[in-house]
Amino acid sequence: MSGKLDKLVYRFGDGRADGGAEMKNLLGGKGANLAEMSRLGLPVPPGFTITTEVCDYYNANGKTYPEGLKEDVEAALREVGEKAGGVFGDAENPLLVSVRSGARVSMPGMMDTVLNLGLNDETVKGIVARTSDERFAYDSYRRFIQMYGDVVMGIEHHLFEDILEDYKQGKGVELDTDLTADDWREIITRYKDLVASETGKPFPEDVNEQLWGAITAVFESWNAPRAITYRKLNDIPEDWGTAVNVQSMVFGNMGDDSATGVAFTRNPATGENKVYGEFLVNAQGEDVVAGIRTPQSLSEEAREESGSELPSLETVMPDLFAQLMDVFHKLEAHYRDMQDVEFTIQNGKLWLLQTRVGKRTARAALKIATDLVREGIISREEAVMRIEPAALDQLLHPTIDPAAERNVIARGLPASPGAAAGEIVFDSDEAEKLNEKGHKVILVRVETSPEDIHGMHAAQGILTTRGGMTSHAAVVARGMGTPCVSGAGAINVDYKAKTLTAGDVTLKAGDWITLDGATGEVLAGKVPMVQPELSGEFATLMEWADAARRMDVRANADTPHDAKTARDFGARGIGLCRTEHMFFEASRIAAVREMILAGNEAGRRAALDKLLPMQRGDFAAIFREMAGLPVTIRLLDPPLHEFLPHDGKDIAELAENMGVSAEAVKKRVDELHEFNPMLGHRGVRLAITYPEIAEMQARAIFEAAVEVKRESGKAPLVEVMVPLVLSKRELDLIAGRIHEVAGQVMKKAGEEIGYMVGTMIELPRAALLANEIAQTAQFFSFGTNDLTQTALGISRDDASKFLGEYVAKGVFETDPFVSIDKEGVGQLVRMGVERGRAAREGIKLGVCGEHGGDPASIDFFDEAGLDYVSCSPFRVPIARLAAAQAALRHKEA
Amino acid sequence: MSGKLDKLVYRFGDGRADGGAEMKNLLGGKGANLAEMSRLGLPVPPGFTITTEVCDYYNANGKTYPEGLKEDVEAALREVGEKAGGVFGDAENPLLVSVRSGARVSMPGMMDTVLNLGLNDETVKGIVARTSDERFAYDSYRRFIQMYGDVVMGIEHHLFEDILEDYKQGKGVELDTDLTADDWREIITRYKDLVASETGKPFPEDVNEQLWGAITAVFESWNAPRAITYRKLNDIPEDWGTAVNVQSMVFGNMGDDSATGVAFTRNPATGENKVYGEFLVNAQGEDVVAGIRTPQSLSEEAREESGSELPSLETVMPDLFAQLMDVFHKLEAHYRDMQDVEFTIQNGKLWLLQTRVGKRTARAALKIATDLVREGIISREEAVMRIEPAALDQLLHPTIDPAAERNVIARGLPASPGAAAGEIVFDSDEAEKLNEKGHKVILVRVETSPEDIHGMHAAQGILTTRGGMTSHAAVVARGMGTPCVSGAGAINVDYKAKTLTAGDVTLKAGDWITLDGATGEVLAGKVPMVQPELSGEFATLMEWADAARRMDVRANADTPHDAKTARDFGARGIGLCRTEHMFFEASRIAAVREMILAGNEAGRRAALDKLLPMQRGDFAAIFREMAGLPVTIRLLDPPLHEFLPHDGKDIAELAENMGVSAEAVKKRVDELHEFNPMLGHRGVRLAITYPEIAEMQARAIFEAAVEVKRESGKAPLVEVMVPLVLSKRELDLIAGRIHEVAGQVMKKAGEEIGYMVGTMIELPRAALLANEIAQTAQFFSFGTNDLTQTALGISRDDASKFLGEYVAKGVFETDPFVSIDKEGVGQLVRMGVERGRAAREGIKLGVCGEHGGDPASIDFFDEAGLDYVSCSPFRVPIARLAAAQAALRHKEA
Repeated sequence: MSGKLDKLVYRFGDGRADGGAEMKNLLGGKGANLAEMSRLGLPVPPGFTITTEVCDYYNANGKTYPEGLKEDVEAALREVGEKAGGVFGDAENPLLVSVRSGARVSMPGMMDTVLNLGLNDETVKGIVARTSDERFAYDSYRRFIQMYGDVVMGIEHHLFEDILEDYKQGKGVELDTDLTADDWREIITRYKDLVASETGKPFPEDVNEQLWGAITAVFESWNAPRAITYRKLNDIPEDWGTAVNVQSMVFGNMGDDSATGVAFTRNPATGENKVYGEFLVNAQGEDVVAGIRTPQSLSEEAREESGSELPSLETVMPDLFAQLMDVFHKLEAHYRDMQDVEFTIQNGKLWLLQTRVGKRTARAALKIATDLVREGIISREEAVMRIEPAALDQLLHPTIDPAAERNVIARGLPASPGAAAGEIVFDSDEAEKLNEKGHKVILVRVETSPEDIHGMHAAQGILTTRGGMTSHAAVVARGMGTPCVSGAGAINVDYKAKTLTAGDVTLKAGDWITLDGATGEVLAGKVPMVQPELSGEFATLMEWADAARRMDVRANADTPHDAKTARDFGARGIGLCRTEHMFFEASRIAAVREMILAGNEAGRRAALDKLLPMQRGDFAAIFREMAGLPVTIRLLDPPLHEFLPHDGKDIAELAENMGVSAEAVKKRVDELHEFNPMLGHRGVRLAITYPEIAEMQARAIFEAAVEVKRESGKAPLVEVMVPLVLSKRELDLIAGRIHEVAGQVMKKAGEEIGYMVGTMIELPRAALLANEIAQTAQFFSFGTNDLTQTALGISRDDASKFLGEYVAKGVFETDPFVSIDKEGVGQLVRMGVERGRAAREGIKLGVCGEHGGDPASIDFFDEAGLDYVSCSPFRVPIARLAAAQAALRHKEA
Repeated sequence: MSGKLDKLVYRFGDGRADGGAEMKNLLGGKGANLAEMSRLGLPVPPGFTITTEVCDYYNANGKTYPEGLKEDVEAALREVGEKAGGVFGDAENPLLVSVRSGARVSMPGMMDTVLNLGLNDETVKGIVARTSDERFAYDSYRRFIQMYGDVVMGIEHHLFEDILEDYKQGKGVELDTDLTADDWREIITRYKDLVASETGKPFPEDVNEQLWGAITAVFESWNAPRAITYRKLNDIPEDWGTAVNVQSMVFGNMGDDSATGVAFTRNPATGENKVYGEFLVNAQGEDVVAGIRTPQSLSEEAREESGSELPSLETVMPDLFAQLMDVFHKLEAHYRDMQDVEFTIQNGKLWLLQTRVGKRTARAALKIATDLVREGIISREEAVMRIEPAALDQLLHPTIDPAAERNVIARGLPASPGAAAGEIVFDSDEAEKLNEKGHKVILVRVETSPEDIHGMHAAQGILTTRGGMTSHAAVVARGMGTPCVSGAGAINVDYKAKTLTAGDVTLKAGDWITLDGATGEVLAGKVPMVQPELSGEFATLMEWADAARRMDVRANADTPHDAKTARDFGARGIGLCRTEHMFFEASRIAAVREMILAGNEAGRRAALDKLLPMQRGDFAAIFREMAGLPVTIRLLDPPLHEFLPHDGKDIAELAENMGVSAEAVKKRVDELHEFNPMLGHRGVRLAITYPEIAEMQARAIFEAAVEVKRESGKAPLVEVMVPLVLSKRELDLIAGRIHEVAGQVMKKAGEEIGYMVGTMIELPRAALLANEIAQTAQFFSFGTNDLTQTALGISRDDASKFLGEYVAKGVFETDPFVSIDKEGVGQLVRMGVERGRAAREGIKLGVCGEHGGDPASIDFFDEAGLDYVSCSPFRVPIARLAAAQAALRHKEA
């Protein structure tokens, strides 16, 4: 950046402005919004913005300013003085200004604000004369020195505080308000001495020196280490630069006809269309926040509701209240959303200092968005775009009653949302037993493993002391919609003694605890809950979302219960039904183990014959819940050793049950041991070496489909999914068997069942060779969990050791198991899509990894052209909304 | 295939032929070669070939023959009779023929040969009359019935044998030669009865029925299950088809002026340019092979050398010997290679029945190729193409003396070539101790782990009872060039008793055993060895290879010893120096463990300070060996838990040495435990979380380089390699530190060291984002081991459970850890190459996975445009040759 710049300074105020909201890149967010309000004719204290291009120029040209800037600033400042009725540096009628930074996005490390700039030993007397308030004038002056000394001259803040404290101690007073104008004069002298001794220079009396010092400090702060780090981490280009806003001061503390306040144009907690805010008479903005005085309500209605004795603005300044309401309506009509506004009343005149879109709860967001549609202010599509999908989570789970007392004994990770209370139990078998007897239990484990599935199913909530957001417990719990707190490292579990200890609290099995899966808090006792209420607005917005989305949303569900939940939440089918969980149930695990321990195919087939009717029953129950919708069933995926016990006692017990020697069981366990089970003998590899397992599962699936078709006339659309495929040949070998079994079952029953055989794309090689695989596969489901593990070479179970540091150091923007790594894994997904479609036009493409419920990932999947996403039942509404937003975004693009 | 075919039958014989060697696709290998020899004017019994197109027609048209075939065959057969002097089916002067299949490549499951076709009860009399040898005639007839009955009529071979055996028992004779013409007549009767009872039809008397039965049998055998399976596994298209060769019979057993023999035109064991072969007077081809009579030498010189009393062909038939030598010269001049020839002399006339390129030992291959260049027959490039690179392995290792007695007690996998003998030792510490005392030891373990490295280094050879070709023991042993037999499952190791048992043999620690790493045999005792001799031909050929290759060849070497071996074998630098092995040495492991157990960075740095001088010494020693050549040093790669002990006793011992509690050590071991270490906290991830380790290693590297430069004036070209990178950002973080350390060291020393910082491309994401990574990386080394593991999702350590079945079922052509998976992993390599070069022109690209020493993979790497391959020292010559062949192939293409 060099050479002549077009326009260096943009003015605003007095109902006009050189800039506007659309010029954020040039004026920064704050400057653009001040200009916009000014253009709208709203009362904004006049001022001007020095552009971000000046910042770039400054950095690129050895910290010099472009030609003409000085003149432009002087001219602009003169104009500000004319509008505000004052002259910068004038001893009789001085103009005071604030100087603020303002980049496109707010950024930590940047200089914030210098107020009251333009005060010196002469101009302060002008303020005294014009306000007849000596104390106010000198207080303002010392505040200026303090702020300027700190942020512009780099003197540590606490040195000023020390002087003030010493002085108050010396005088024996406690509050600033106890100090007089004379006290402030004395303190100002000491402040100036401090500045001289710290910097070797006197505090600048020249107001122009003050101004340029502040402007330069803003530009310099762009290169503060913290700002640079932040930009690096957030991919913010160096050349965006910051703007500088210079604005005339207004004061809410100039007497009883002055006031200051903050307001939301609607209620940010409930969304109700009622103004919501606070103000203080004769006060400055910081006093409202400081909480020294109790703020007053704006409207009478709000005052009544809150039961406050203090009068409302509506009562004390009815005209100004009316003006403010008028402003609010203008702002909402203009910005088309609820606004968060700062205002000041100076001697009976209303000034607006800031407006921005107001933050709100999920509930309020829904209400405001649907109301704005009804009011004709925004369209349905805009309403859909207004809701943060992840925020819906708050609405879908029970939560801890906000009024309840919280006895937090430890904190872990908020691994699966919702709150749950139950009796502590340390063992999965015990959890299942107690649950069957009607107890509500919380399963507490150091870590969970696939052997705990039945206990996790039986529990209201799960607490682990080890493992991260993507640990086994966390992933499975989210899948089940069960609240979970993971990795609560401060808790010590003693399995033997059946106790848990957190600090000095020890709880034993049977004691009640409560988990808050949204915050990660572990609470002692049974804390009351609030049940989720899916209000009318929720249903309305979901309807609009469904109308807007292109992708279908399915659920990952392994049980009829999950399938029902999913359908209730609007899932249009099952995208992933894992069959291994069925194998872990107490009634089946014996037959599964018998199969694994069998020495030959005949032995395995005998054990599989026992499993067949149970599997058929599982599938039939799920098909009933999903009648008429597609159900994708994945063949057995985990390595067989996951089904065998590992410790001596359990092995001995199993051996006895099976009537074999413990050595034989131990030998098989050792044989099956794997160094890297994730990359081991699992998925389609099991089907290749033990085709009889796949055959049994296929038979169970088709027999169940026939059964449900006969019962209800509504057969499911069966999709048999082969996992972990890396070549067409593998799929050919297994698909052939599935088609054979399907043919046999249908012929015997005399019924036709619509079905497809497809595969997961969850290995890089499968994505690379999708063109070949699609010759056989009738659908693809991207398994982005495993695809992430393999493409990145990161084991999800082990990643917690370094993933935090990887995010902190900017290697990953977010945990790649939470939001898909678009640059890497995303390339493989796109390849899979393109190559799959090239080989088989119209091939059905979906995703069933955890990413299927993550809004950022859903956006990517929509762009990549997938047909559907599948996620855990409780995330279905989130996915529906995210899919709608993605479709709308990509329609625009 | 349908419609009119151009020409169905190709004739040969009598110095002319319709076809030639270039028509293999149409005539099959055998037919094309017979035509070629005939064209050359060599005496080939006349015959004709029915084309492969007829086979296709037959299969595509409901097993019918194309129009005109019958007439063409009849005409051809007439012509054959005219040339051979006989008439097919004529009772007085019958023409007998052989019928053979002949596809483009030889294929198991295909019909082989029917001899003597054309014999029946009438024509056999003609043979009797013309040969005056009744016994010969009826013996020929019964042989024909037996062969035809078996291969054409499908009667099980043993049924004929049973009849013959019964007959001999009945007569009380043992040998076929004891049977008379009458005996054969009787047996013929019984054979015919067998045919009638087995097939319900009489044996065909009609010679044309015989002929068409045999032709059809050949075409049918194309669709035999075994042939189909073989084609599938070897990607041979169905429509290649087979040809049928019909050729007039010649007999070497028609008296003392007849003979039969086989010969190599040069010595296939040594390569000497001397005819090498055997013959028998008055005998048939099968008699030479059967070993009933002792064959005779062809030349007098050979007879003298063998010390045989039996006269040579040169003596008994000097004219024919001279004719044969003349034929051999013609064949060599024409085919430009040593030939393997079958010939028959019938009544003083020489006939050639087959010629093909002769198989030979590696030593002979070298000698023949270099001789042929010297003789002006082939070019240097052709000589280079003639040697099978893998065969060189035979020449590079000691081998078991072929004359020695072999007491094989068990067999395992030939995991690392070469033979070794030593005392049995079951423990790595013990192996090291004994080795230091001058004992030669063989390390015997159930499996090896990284903790055994010192023992493996100390051992002459390694034997494991578990694990495959890619187990830890196998991979490390190959890297070291140490002979290894892995997975010898029949051996039972008892660590406590210090014994190994194989069947009924029990050996104890200290007993001698010998391993043959080339065959996988385990032999009791100390068996004598033959040391490799790298003859002049070897050096000559390597020189030609080096002139022809485009890629450089480096070695993977972790020690000065390996580096020296590599350089001796012609390595042009080190492509992978793993630093972790250095950490395992007894003198360092304590400091390594201290570092791992340290609770903070200061503690780690203190331990690293101890390691620094040792690492510097390691690197300096390697740099000395590689003075002036590039040395790629990989920063620490394995997860830290690999350096800690895992069993209670070792943990307690370590705790005591470190002065901490066993619980503390146990806790750290547990903390570091990983479910999938392959995908765990390793590689650059260690450097990100513990940058002090990378810094220490960088310091050691650059200080060592300075040291060697000062000593010798020849600094190495240092390449610091960061492993397991998946993003530019990771590399930025670490490369920055390395550059900083390099700068410090060089500044302090006042010396400049040429160096680069680069990365391994061993994760799919790294290949996909190679364009970004290359902005920082100055070189790439493809780590195709890990790239294969991640792209395919297969753990090398666990793959043995299913990989065999995957190869057998045709999912993989070969083990993808042996030869690179071109379709999948190869795509990633190509991407890495293209994208890397796009971002950094001229970026240095190499490969350092096990594939770097595999000829098929080297061919791919040349095609993909890599700059070098790196492999274990003992494979360097193989890689040089393979690289040369790849370059020549791709130059042609």
